[in-house]
Amino acid sequence: MNDGAPATLRVAVLGCGVVGTEVVRGLLDNAVELRSRTGTQLDLVGIGVRSTATPRDAVVPVDLLTEDLTGLVERADLVIELMGGIEPARALILDALAAGASVVTANKALLAQHGPTLYEAADASRVDLFYEAAVAGAVPVVRGVRESLAGDKITRVLGIVNGTTNYILDEMTSNGLDFGTALAQAQDLGYAEADPTADVEGFDAAAKATILASLAFHSRTSMDDVPVQGITSITPEDISAAAQTGHVIKMLAIAEQGEHDGIRGLAVRVHPALVPETHPLASVRGPYNAVFVEAEAAGTLMFYGAGAGGAATSSAVLGDVVAAARDRVNGGKAPSESAHAALPAMPAQAVHTRYQMRLDVLDVPGVLAEIAAAVAAHGVSIETVRQGVRDPEEGAALMIVTHSASESALAATVADLDTLDVVERITSILRVEGN
Amino acid sequence: MNDGAPATLRVAVLGCGVVGTEVVRGLLDNAVELRSRTGTQLDLVGIGVRSTATPRDAVVPVDLLTEDLTGLVERADLVIELMGGIEPARALILDALAAGASVVTANKALLAQHGPTLYEAADASRVDLFYEAAVAGAVPVVRGVRESLAGDKITRVLGIVNGTTNYILDEMTSNGLDFGTALAQAQDLGYAEADPTADVEGFDAAAKATILASLAFHSRTSMDDVPVQGITSITPEDISAAAQTGHVIKMLAIAEQGEHDGIRGLAVRVHPALVPETHPLASVRGPYNAVFVEAEAAGTLMFYGAGAGGAATSSAVLGDVVAAARDRVNGGKAPSESAHAALPAMPAQAVHTRYQMRLDVLDVPGVLAEIAAAVAAHGVSIETVRQGVRDPEEGAALMIVTHSASESALAATVADLDTLDVVERITSILRVEGN
Repeated sequence: MNDGAPATLRVAVLGCGVVGTEVVRGLLDNAVELRSRTGTQLDLVGIGVRSTATPRDAVVPVDLLTEDLTGLVERADLVIELMGGIEPARALILDALAAGASVVTANKALLAQHGPTLYEAADASRVDLFYEAAVAGAVPVVRGVRESLAGDKITRVLGIVNGTTNYILDEMTSNGLDFGTALAQAQDLGYAEADPTADVEGFDAAAKATILASLAFHSRTSMDDVPVQGITSITPEDISAAAQTGHVIKMLAIAEQGEHDGIRGLAVRVHPALVPETHPLASVRGPYNAVFVEAEAAGTLMFYGAGAGGAATSSAVLGDVVAAARDRVNGGKAPSESAHAALPAMPAQAVHTRYQMRLDVLDVPGVLAEIAAAVAAHGVSIETVRQGVRDPEEGAALMIVTHSASESALAATVADLDTLDVVERITSILRVEGN
Repeated sequence: MNDGAPATLRVAVLGCGVVGTEVVRGLLDNAVELRSRTGTQLDLVGIGVRSTATPRDAVVPVDLLTEDLTGLVERADLVIELMGGIEPARALILDALAAGASVVTANKALLAQHGPTLYEAADASRVDLFYEAAVAGAVPVVRGVRESLAGDKITRVLGIVNGTTNYILDEMTSNGLDFGTALAQAQDLGYAEADPTADVEGFDAAAKATILASLAFHSRTSMDDVPVQGITSITPEDISAAAQTGHVIKMLAIAEQGEHDGIRGLAVRVHPALVPETHPLASVRGPYNAVFVEAEAAGTLMFYGAGAGGAATSSAVLGDVVAAARDRVNGGKAPSESAHAALPAMPAQAVHTRYQMRLDVLDVPGVLAEIAAAVAAHGVSIETVRQGVRDPEEGAALMIVTHSASESALAATVADLDTLDVVERITSILRVEGN
């Protein structure tokens, strides 16, 4: 410990919902361990809430509750922000950083939208801003990417970063449920909100993808550059068609480097995709999260664990609290935001991947030749074609998997196929990832 | 950057084998990125080797090679030790730390044997001693346990930390090879040394288990307290018997808390074990490593990736180099060794787990009753019994899986079974883990 190390650190918790309650529990129950691990006493000086009248878990000391969040921040050396939302969280964090307090937050929406402002404020005051809990709950992927891989070059990040959609897709895969039934079950179990939009439409995953991509590629990325597709239109037929070729459907957040018009850029996207059953991400079950990282030297790494839940998220928050407290004791500081690579966002149309298309077609001679010609006309090459499942009296079904092609080439191909008389219906188009 | 931050850091690499060469490559090829990420120039001032005459990869600057390792260490702010072995690595690291240099090492044997001495020396000089690469290569489990989970309580660590044995067991499982053939194949592919003893007998895994257990349980552990069993006696019959009950055989390093005679203690052990096919560790294939961590708040986490190889290991080394360089720039210091929990080693006999026993028995009435009575007499309870595979003319075979029992109760049970006339042979006894 420094000679000038503080004997105690004044800790403020902002927000006392599910995660806040567990963080308070951890701070109080593990006080002795935390002291050993940080070299200082973490003194919980207040818990900022919207209303002190709301009933709370018995672990929350009532006398520490306050509705004066601004005043609480002024009294703290270390602020833990667990309120969520943009304001007043943003203003309170900026106040804390400006006053020289360290900040730990789990607020992914805020970081995805205003990250650079917050990182700059932390740098200006030479204090820590930690946010492990903002991505994939307890899974230590932020530290993994930010610190462990700091000496390597990350080339791709493929993540299952939303537990709700993974649970729903897993139930559809393992138990044959349709989307609506699986969603209702997820809501019953508390894995999905009453309004599931942010999860099932992919916005939650997009915020996490934005944060991870910025870290992994040392570039500033914006959610506006992240094309997002949800899982609401995934059908049991999609799931079984994927199984026929040894794949499972997973909701993925993907960030990767690419090149477009000779310029190196960063493509970030969120959508359901077919993943080979043998890929480590395929075996991520239920509400678990996992992030698969490809790097030049390290090869492939995967971080796996609970992506949500009060206790799990509190583990990540408290890990950050210990790190921030240690830095105050030792006089250090976490790595600053690193945006030196400054890769521009690549247009979505430039992204290359493989596709699985399912078509209902007329059962007439020459249909395959006609379709193959239409696909080839756009420079897309076909990897496999197989007969799909359809009532023979109705016609035939085809399942086509392409080699890697650009989104723009695929879009043009699909537009063309749609005009062919032999094509009755394009049943589904899904990307194939993880090869 | 601090006002007093160094404009350059003098970096010395000790050892220039497979990993050393890749570290040199990374330091030189990524010099611009490393400068951006650390805020300082990493200046490679020398590469210490046994003989400068040995032919080297073209990436290694010949003019930086030196046989004067002591002199080199004196000229460095940051020493990267990749020589392996105990001496002179130990003396050189202690010299470096005493002189105020930061140290990054991949030397698991040295840490397992002399860790506390080294940690104390680093603390005394207030410099960093990092060793991510010592456990599971590129897999960032050291930082995960040391920092990410610093605010949580780890209850158990289950790891596949030796790629050689995982490759061999995977080949035996997936392709039906016997141990000798799989080992020869591993040697052909460079996954196993010409003398494979340290890997196949479990000593390499035991060193890693010792390091991980010390970190995870904030206690000093010694390799002397780690019972080790290798995989040389695992047969194809063991593999197929495991498959019959939905298990695969994995070589595991296990560290967990337990209680013995009313005293809380730490049990660390290394041995092959049956793991359910649905467990995340079961899907770790080939030479990959994975560490499964159970913690009170976080639940279960898994860290997965390449456990060996020059490039992968260099990724972990360079991540540590960046962290150490940043700390020199920012004036911080990594967490000190944390041995405050000081859990004593639990005697091996006190460890509780489940067992699978395979027995060749006489095919006579009452044999099961006699065996069940012998097992029950030691307080061991049977979970399942099933008929094993054996030529009916020779007699019968039984496969018994027990509920959790202590090693001592099992040993007594086995001794008793061995005396029964109906038991012709105890074919194998394997632990069952991961439930």
